[in-house]
Amino acid sequence: MIESLITYRGEVLPQWTDYNGHLRDAFYLLIFSYATDGFMDLIGLDTAGREASGHSLFTLECHLNFLHEAKQGEAFEVRTQLLGHDHKRLHLYHSLHRADAGTELAANEQMLLHVAVAGPKSTPFGEGTAQCLATVAQRQKDMAPPRWAGRVIALP
Amino acid sequence: MIESLITYRGEVLPQWTDYNGHLRDAFYLLIFSYATDGFMDLIGLDTAGREASGHSLFTLECHLNFLHEAKQGEAFEVRTQLLGHDHKRLHLYHSLHRADAGTELAANEQMLLHVAVAGPKSTPFGEGTAQCLATVAQRQKDMAPPRWAGRVIALP
Repeated sequence: MIESLITYRGEVLPQWTDYNGHLRDAFYLLIFSYATDGFMDLIGLDTAGREASGHSLFTLECHLNFLHEAKQGEAFEVRTQLLGHDHKRLHLYHSLHRADAGTELAANEQMLLHVAVAGPKSTPFGEGTAQCLATVAQRQKDMAPPRWAGRVIALP
Repeated sequence: MIESLITYRGEVLPQWTDYNGHLRDAFYLLIFSYATDGFMDLIGLDTAGREASGHSLFTLECHLNFLHEAKQGEAFEVRTQLLGHDHKRLHLYHSLHRADAGTELAANEQMLLHVAVAGPKSTPFGEGTAQCLATVAQRQKDMAPPRWAGRVIALP
């Protein structure tokens, strides 16, 4: 069995909820954005690494599926799968789960670009980051393709 | 020429920016979420309409393309195109533009479901909403298909 890579844990904050007391759509993405920060910490792009290298990630594109409502105060975790990468792009998949029962609340696919912030312009991953990505890819190589990746939005 | 339907105007707030002073990915979606609220106001699903009917919209799925950075204080507008609808689903396309030059900063495709909040369960649009949607669809019927709709995320 492959252990899940947990990149963010928290609980639904009052300022993230709508008039019904439910997590508003944009704040699902904020949670996934924090999970990407968590993943960056694992590949040498934490605050110190970004400041030393002048490199960071820019979100090019993302796709979200909202599966269940989340209420104020609910504890959650985000599990992350590296779907692919080349020399400067990262294809990530995050899923948001209730911390207790594990119910999947939402899914998010992201394409990220490695950039030199000073440009800003795209630039290849540094050697350390490239090695970290290879390690994650190797560990996750037998994981099943995720349920909500590769989708097109259309009326049924 | 078809006039753009502007559903939200504002400027980039300090609490929406990241460590670089740029609009963070999740807050692009918050802006688009407010634009959906603006669209709801036009189709009888404003606060008063929601309270009277017990109906609302639930976001099922969305796709975002981030095209340019937006800085704190930048003024913007969101233009909205109704791509399609059936008796209980709404397929919307929003694009975010600089208020001055009109530069497109981001695009967002959304699929929304009409729900009776008490269930919650999906339910057909009320007659007033259905009529409003038909009117918008008629006005926009000659608009070109938008640039960033119908995409799948994949490495090149």
